Amino acid sequence: MIFKQTWKGKNCSEGIYFPASVPGNIQADYARAHGFADLQFADNYKQFLPLEDDHWEYETTLAFTKSEGERVFFVSHGIDYKYDILLDGALLYSYEGIYRPVELDLTDKLKSESLLSVHIYPHPKRAGAPVGTRDEADASCKPPVCYGWDWNPRLLISGMWQDAYIETRDDSYISVPKALATLNDEMTEGSVKFDFDCAKACEISLYDADGNCVSRTNGREMTVPSPNLWWCNGQGEAYLYRYEIKNAHFSREGHIGFKRLRFLRNEGETDPREFPKSRYTPAFTIELNGRKILGKGSNWVNPEVFWGEIDEARYNELLTLARDANMNILRLWGGASVCKDSFYDLCDKYGILVWQEFMLACNNYLGTPEYLATLESEASYIIKNLRSHPSLAFWCGGNELFNSWSGMDDQSLPLRLLNKLCYELDPTRPFIPTSPIMGVAHGCYLFYSHMQGGEVFAEFQNANNTAYTEFGVPSVASLESLKRIIPEDELFPIERTPAWVAHHAFDAWGAQNWLCLDVLRSYFGEPKSIEDIVENSSWLQSEGYKGAFEEMRRQWPHCSMMLNWCYNEPWITAANNSIIEYPAKPKKAYFAIKDAMRETIFSARIKKFSWREGEMLEAEIWLLNDRPEVVKGKVKISLCLGDSVTELLEWSAEAAANRNTAGPTVRFILPHADTDRLTLLLEADDGRSSSYCFHYRPAPAPIKKVKMLNM
Amino acid sequence: MIFKQTWKGKNCSEGIYFPASVPGNIQADYARAHGFADLQFADNYKQFLPLEDDHWEYETTLAFTKSEGERVFFVSHGIDYKYDILLDGALLYSYEGIYRPVELDLTDKLKSESLLSVHIYPHPKRAGAPVGTRDEADASCKPPVCYGWDWNPRLLISGMWQDAYIETRDDSYISVPKALATLNDEMTEGSVKFDFDCAKACEISLYDADGNCVSRTNGREMTVPSPNLWWCNGQGEAYLYRYEIKNAHFSREGHIGFKRLRFLRNEGETDPREFPKSRYTPAFTIELNGRKILGKGSNWVNPEVFWGEIDEARYNELLTLARDANMNILRLWGGASVCKDSFYDLCDKYGILVWQEFMLACNNYLGTPEYLATLESEASYIIKNLRSHPSLAFWCGGNELFNSWSGMDDQSLPLRLLNKLCYELDPTRPFIPTSPIMGVAHGCYLFYSHMQGGEVFAEFQNANNTAYTEFGVPSVASLESLKRIIPEDELFPIERTPAWVAHHAFDAWGAQNWLCLDVLRSYFGEPKSIEDIVENSSWLQSEGYKGAFEEMRRQWPHCSMMLNWCYNEPWITAANNSIIEYPAKPKKAYFAIKDAMRETIFSARIKKFSWREGEMLEAEIWLLNDRPEVVKGKVKISLCLGDSVTELLEWSAEAAANRNTAGPTVRFILPHADTDRLTLLLEADDGRSSSYCFHYRPAPAPIKKVKMLNM
Repeated sequence: MIFKQTWKGKNCSEGIYFPASVPGNIQADYARAHGFADLQFADNYKQFLPLEDDHWEYETTLAFTKSEGERVFFVSHGIDYKYDILLDGALLYSYEGIYRPVELDLTDKLKSESLLSVHIYPHPKRAGAPVGTRDEADASCKPPVCYGWDWNPRLLISGMWQDAYIETRDDSYISVPKALATLNDEMTEGSVKFDFDCAKACEISLYDADGNCVSRTNGREMTVPSPNLWWCNGQGEAYLYRYEIKNAHFSREGHIGFKRLRFLRNEGETDPREFPKSRYTPAFTIELNGRKILGKGSNWVNPEVFWGEIDEARYNELLTLARDANMNILRLWGGASVCKDSFYDLCDKYGILVWQEFMLACNNYLGTPEYLATLESEASYIIKNLRSHPSLAFWCGGNELFNSWSGMDDQSLPLRLLNKLCYELDPTRPFIPTSPIMGVAHGCYLFYSHMQGGEVFAEFQNANNTAYTEFGVPSVASLESLKRIIPEDELFPIERTPAWVAHHAFDAWGAQNWLCLDVLRSYFGEPKSIEDIVENSSWLQSEGYKGAFEEMRRQWPHCSMMLNWCYNEPWITAANNSIIEYPAKPKKAYFAIKDAMRETIFSARIKKFSWREGEMLEAEIWLLNDRPEVVKGKVKISLCLGDSVTELLEWSAEAAANRNTAGPTVRFILPHADTDRLTLLLEADDGRSSSYCFHYRPAPAPIKKVKMLNM
Repeated sequence: MIFKQTWKGKNCSEGIYFPASVPGNIQADYARAHGFADLQFADNYKQFLPLEDDHWEYETTLAFTKSEGERVFFVSHGIDYKYDILLDGALLYSYEGIYRPVELDLTDKLKSESLLSVHIYPHPKRAGAPVGTRDEADASCKPPVCYGWDWNPRLLISGMWQDAYIETRDDSYISVPKALATLNDEMTEGSVKFDFDCAKACEISLYDADGNCVSRTNGREMTVPSPNLWWCNGQGEAYLYRYEIKNAHFSREGHIGFKRLRFLRNEGETDPREFPKSRYTPAFTIELNGRKILGKGSNWVNPEVFWGEIDEARYNELLTLARDANMNILRLWGGASVCKDSFYDLCDKYGILVWQEFMLACNNYLGTPEYLATLESEASYIIKNLRSHPSLAFWCGGNELFNSWSGMDDQSLPLRLLNKLCYELDPTRPFIPTSPIMGVAHGCYLFYSHMQGGEVFAEFQNANNTAYTEFGVPSVASLESLKRIIPEDELFPIERTPAWVAHHAFDAWGAQNWLCLDVLRSYFGEPKSIEDIVENSSWLQSEGYKGAFEEMRRQWPHCSMMLNWCYNEPWITAANNSIIEYPAKPKKAYFAIKDAMRETIFSARIKKFSWREGEMLEAEIWLLNDRPEVVKGKVKISLCLGDSVTELLEWSAEAAANRNTAGPTVRFILPHADTDRLTLLLEADDGRSSSYCFHYRPAPAPIKKVKMLNM
């Protein structure tokens, strides 16, 4: 039996009690109780800054009449971050780390009425780190995003972020089971090992998706001949089997899936041709169930600032959008690290592969004995908890650790420890120490930047990486959202006010980002209204992302993965690379990417965004195919300039399973037209079209050079 | 008490006994007993081929009167490769792997006379691998070199290659101790943990190099304040402390040294400048006791074909030569892997750092459960056995595993296992999965090759790697050695006879190598005698190596290590990249390298080998300094052409500790002279000169192009 308790909380420096939500975050409870102004508005997040170094306490009163043979447990699925648990003031348990659950047998200590309390220590901050920076996060296993990121306000949260309850157990109790499903090399037989504790004998039954029992055992292992395989989105069904474990008085259920995933070397990658020779690039092409597949997806970040408040419904609205956008993989970026269990259940169901990172990002985690001990405890739990999910694709140490802004290395002990733990606990899954690894690339994050050699189109057309696992194009939020976060009188003209800065429009990554007014001005001149800015910014983002994703698809099978930075966001940003606004509102770019990710599309490779009358427009036409079967199709290519439509070409094409076909190049001298947009339209005979809407100027005058101020 | 036994051996398919040497190899015993012709001569090694799949047995008779309280052990320090140990026909022990020692308590099983036998199984060969190739080695942990390499004849050896004896022990017995010495981060305090077993209390004393006792304990740990540090050759004293462990009746001794070694990032290596950005190169600069040092050394291979016959004296003659050549590091290449213990003791003494590889080379070790189990057993022993040596610098998975000819990857389970074991058992030492890693390079191995863009000089002057951990220039053996291995009537002119092929002159690595007659012809025309070939080949090798080593020194501190392929050889080769002929005879190139490795030298950077009258000779002059102190000096540069000596320049220079100084460039139009050699002479005011002896032609006619046949 499970009993949900009512909890109250207090800030230990004040001693006033307030209602506490479990699961939740105590800072959110405190804010509600103290009438904090709307977090989303202006720079209200700063209300939370004075709370960073406070101690907190949760309390609940337990009043049970114990039954014979029953034991009473306090169970918590995780508490953030360093805490003690006390019963009637006596210390029961201390721990550091947010992921490992705790189960405490209270039976022999309970009085007729007992006080259970959880004491939360202040947030860990590395001594000597610059105050208020994310450097403070590098001596602990607290996910660093809440120390402030270029799209997450600094808001240090803690508390009972996962489910917690009192559970009474008798000898029929079955512990939460884990089922490890593996597939033999030939993929002709599945095996399942069940791991749970029960004092009584249990029967385990496995059911297929139609509800037929395919295996039953009184032991802990079973085999499944010729199992249906679990496929990722777009490659087949995400086939799941349901299992039930039961005895006379208790039962549990869960699901498994059978897949074989490994990395193969990227096509075209080999040793350097000449001596002296170094090594080849690491294998980074996903082979799923014997089939090489292109990884299409995005970088997932925490969907809430107060992640204790995330529930399955929040995950579900975001994950259905990912599935609908034809994504088959999400990278769970190390800054925010691991989600609640329901996230992985939904990924299992929707066929979304999970690239799971541990909680290291953009810092040099030095590997003191204390740090390593906490990391080992947290990571070994994470691995054991998640390895049973078919969606889990591979492990990664953390984000951008082998770059100058972090300073870690292959020898860093935290990464060697993680590799070791993954090898021991989950040896069939790949492990990479960080992203990017050799051959793989991150960036750039802008539509136009000197750092990327110009526009996003050229950037990726000139690149030749084995995967692009972060890249982005920012946009301003929708007008509706901007009105919610920016004081009305600051909406236009945009100035560097605290509200815009707090919401990452300025100074987030260089002075101009993520708003990028300089880029907008360079294409469109001085903006006339906030509506103008929103429209043009969304235009650049959607065409930029479309161009990047389709170019990376063209580079398949040399390029094996493409994940934009980033998918979602934890609060309303004024500007960001996200493609879904907080909480779950798709941007224009979302739909562009969804189109670019369709299993089969006709695509045009176009070199740049701005075109002038008299220039020759060139577009390479491709048939991109991610279907596991041969596709044939016909496309009609037209150019729309204002009201005038010119048919340029028709092409009949065929592409092999999971392969692309390069087609003809369209060349056309742009005529005069009184419009600022040109659209290249690719109409396929299956009724689905692709279109590329670019900037056009009738006057042949040279574009005015504007100095780019971004980094 | 230790009792050395007399052993006899037999080939199980014959049943005839012969005397067996322990330590040794049973194939060598068999050859002696059966009057095999000299292994070194012609293709006599082929006599051993029919023995490959035989079973062997060792036998010895034990006759002991047991004393009260004493136990009798059979101890072997290692048996090659898969074997059973039997007492009076009853199986006592079975094992696969050559490194892990065995200790068997025979006390309760011994009769008044007992027969101890060791049964050796045939050599492991991967089923399905091409017969007679080194591919046969990739399913076992047998060091693969004996399956045949381009400088090692195929000669599959096995047997009791390490010490074996009967040992009686009472309760005062102290097991072979290991002492793990560590240094705190500030290098102000050393700690030692002793690991041994003894039923009685023991006292441990630690003595400094002058014999003064610096610490004494009845426990197992001690600290040493302000310890003298262990330095590698050229950077300070290889300071060792001696320890003694004793009780009333038994004592052991050993040595330790205190050092702190880690990898720092190579200077000048950073993230790619532009987006999309990948990772930076792995740290590969040795920092020893807080000082960055240039790794200068070579690749060590097995010094004998029959490695059971290697003893300390063999190691010593080779290691004193390495020390005298100013080397501070040797790479123990994975094909031959681990040496006997005395090797590491000598390296501790001479200050030679050891890069230790596990027994994987140039194959794809697939990581079956059986393979991984053997690897874990062998590797965990190796780590525990060697980690106490101050000379041990870092671990490496094996040779060239991330190249197309091998096919392993970061995900390969054997390498993840090795990383894990090293992390667990020896976390303060770096681990690299293979050589070359990213940034580091292997090759080329020739004086001239299209694969390296021409001559060895240009090859490395145009390269920019973080380290060169294999590179070579071959030479023909000395005439004396050639006469020992090649039938007299085949010495000249050289034809592709079995003797020349057996000794790697042809078909070792491409058709022409290692003899490289094509290269010799291209510089010197048709050879007139074998003496002519020996002289010119040695000339190319010594100038090629000198040019390469000095160029790599110039690239310090970006380039952090330089190790030529290879140092020694296991038998007399007709031609090889080695700088020491079997058994321990330095080649002309050895002396050139010794000179190039001097702590401080004036060096000339010269672009090519062949010069003609009228050409402008250019030479950049450098002062190279590997001393840990500022050096000053003056150099006089002269050109010698026949008898004529022209003084070109004088330069006074200064170089910081462990840093180089680039100086002026000498330019000089070459006059006419009746000679085929020009020598650039750099005479330093410390009396030590460098000289570069290059090819000169008085006639200005173009050099005849000869097609290069090497790969």
